[in-house]
Amino acid sequence: MSFSLREGERLDDLQRNQLKLIQNPAKFCFGMDAVLLSGFAGVKKGGSCLDLGTGTGIIPILLSVKTEGKEFVGLEIQEESADMACRSVEGNGLEDRVRIVTGDIKEASRLFGAASFDVVTSNPPYMIREHGLKNSDTPRTIARHEVLCSFTDVAREAAAVLRPGGHFYLVHRPFRLAEIIRTLSEYRLEAKRMRMVYPYVEKEPNMVLLEAVRGGRPHMTVDPPLIVYEAPGVYTREIYDVYGY
Amino acid sequence: MSFSLREGERLDDLQRNQLKLIQNPAKFCFGMDAVLLSGFAGVKKGGSCLDLGTGTGIIPILLSVKTEGKEFVGLEIQEESADMACRSVEGNGLEDRVRIVTGDIKEASRLFGAASFDVVTSNPPYMIREHGLKNSDTPRTIARHEVLCSFTDVAREAAAVLRPGGHFYLVHRPFRLAEIIRTLSEYRLEAKRMRMVYPYVEKEPNMVLLEAVRGGRPHMTVDPPLIVYEAPGVYTREIYDVYGY
Repeated sequence: MSFSLREGERLDDLQRNQLKLIQNPAKFCFGMDAVLLSGFAGVKKGGSCLDLGTGTGIIPILLSVKTEGKEFVGLEIQEESADMACRSVEGNGLEDRVRIVTGDIKEASRLFGAASFDVVTSNPPYMIREHGLKNSDTPRTIARHEVLCSFTDVAREAAAVLRPGGHFYLVHRPFRLAEIIRTLSEYRLEAKRMRMVYPYVEKEPNMVLLEAVRGGRPHMTVDPPLIVYEAPGVYTREIYDVYGY
Repeated sequence: MSFSLREGERLDDLQRNQLKLIQNPAKFCFGMDAVLLSGFAGVKKGGSCLDLGTGTGIIPILLSVKTEGKEFVGLEIQEESADMACRSVEGNGLEDRVRIVTGDIKEASRLFGAASFDVVTSNPPYMIREHGLKNSDTPRTIARHEVLCSFTDVAREAAAVLRPGGHFYLVHRPFRLAEIIRTLSEYRLEAKRMRMVYPYVEKEPNMVLLEAVRGGRPHMTVDPPLIVYEAPGVYTREIYDVYGY
């Protein structure tokens, strides 16, 4: 396997199945949120999965080795990120199962057709668009702020491309939870499972993992707390497991 | 202070300010949920608070000593429970601040008037009404199942009796969380703060504490996890604190 790197890019070891990922640290690197989402999401044997806003492809690449899904598609609007994702897919020899498409989340159902996936994943921008946001066209800002798409766009497109009974897995910030649950259900995506991620056992959570089912009935399972650190710099056992160490 | 007890009743020590509570263990006794709610809720100095479905009065009695609120009203439809609550209020010498009213949650805004309280609390029935439920008229069933009122009734009446900007504190089961958040917002009660209660650090939560604000804007704070036991039979420090040991 060989990876073609451009200037400023770095090849990171994903600590699992010898996977590597091309990133440009001056632009944007994936965070723990994406890794935790890949541990939270499930794709059944033979299933298909679309990742909305895939960035450098971390989620479909990890899911392709963590699950027995057949087809993984990553949709990314930023050409530079999509290009890195493509080269990572090739370098890891995953072209048979992972495909990167350059395009807009808002166009997902037009691009792929309605009811075309079993699973949708997304690590969308967390922050509500602020008017007057500076540097609103940098890769980092586009990944973090709702500059190019809102959560409503993500939910609408996830619902549209999912088959009835299909699963939508996402990670977001707890401060938006009430709004997210309502927006999901406007598109008939019922929040069925949730997990709060607490950096330390005595701290407020900084992420929430959610699983919604298209057309599901209201009944939520809340998982045990996911605690990240047991001491400063020391991950809990579960985090080491999800990272594959 | 003296308490008049009837046959089958028991006088329980609330482990705080020498408070005692009359209960009938053959009928229904308060649980940890009510105690945790009294630690989660806040009533400002001089404020008024209505407890919807007060049972034997545990929540207004605890809040009257935990906060500097001026007026606490407990509404209870079951005459026997309301009668025990009245005698507990008298026995504790709290008649100046705590008042028990026998009546239906569904009638709360008619009984007390619109926009008449700063705070509403409720530890409502958790279980969705099942048709064919046996013994549906026992105190325990009425307290646990939505036999006499639904969560929609509780939310509607809480919203109606709250002043604009008033706070609604409730405890419920996590499996109903998505539905609860939606129902609250149908009545312009925005879920603003949440705390998950986990029996053990590695277990699923069995309670959720919620604070909603009438007319609030969407933005939720999620508190650190509340862990109940650190070992079998051994409460965590925080539980000992909330219980006042």
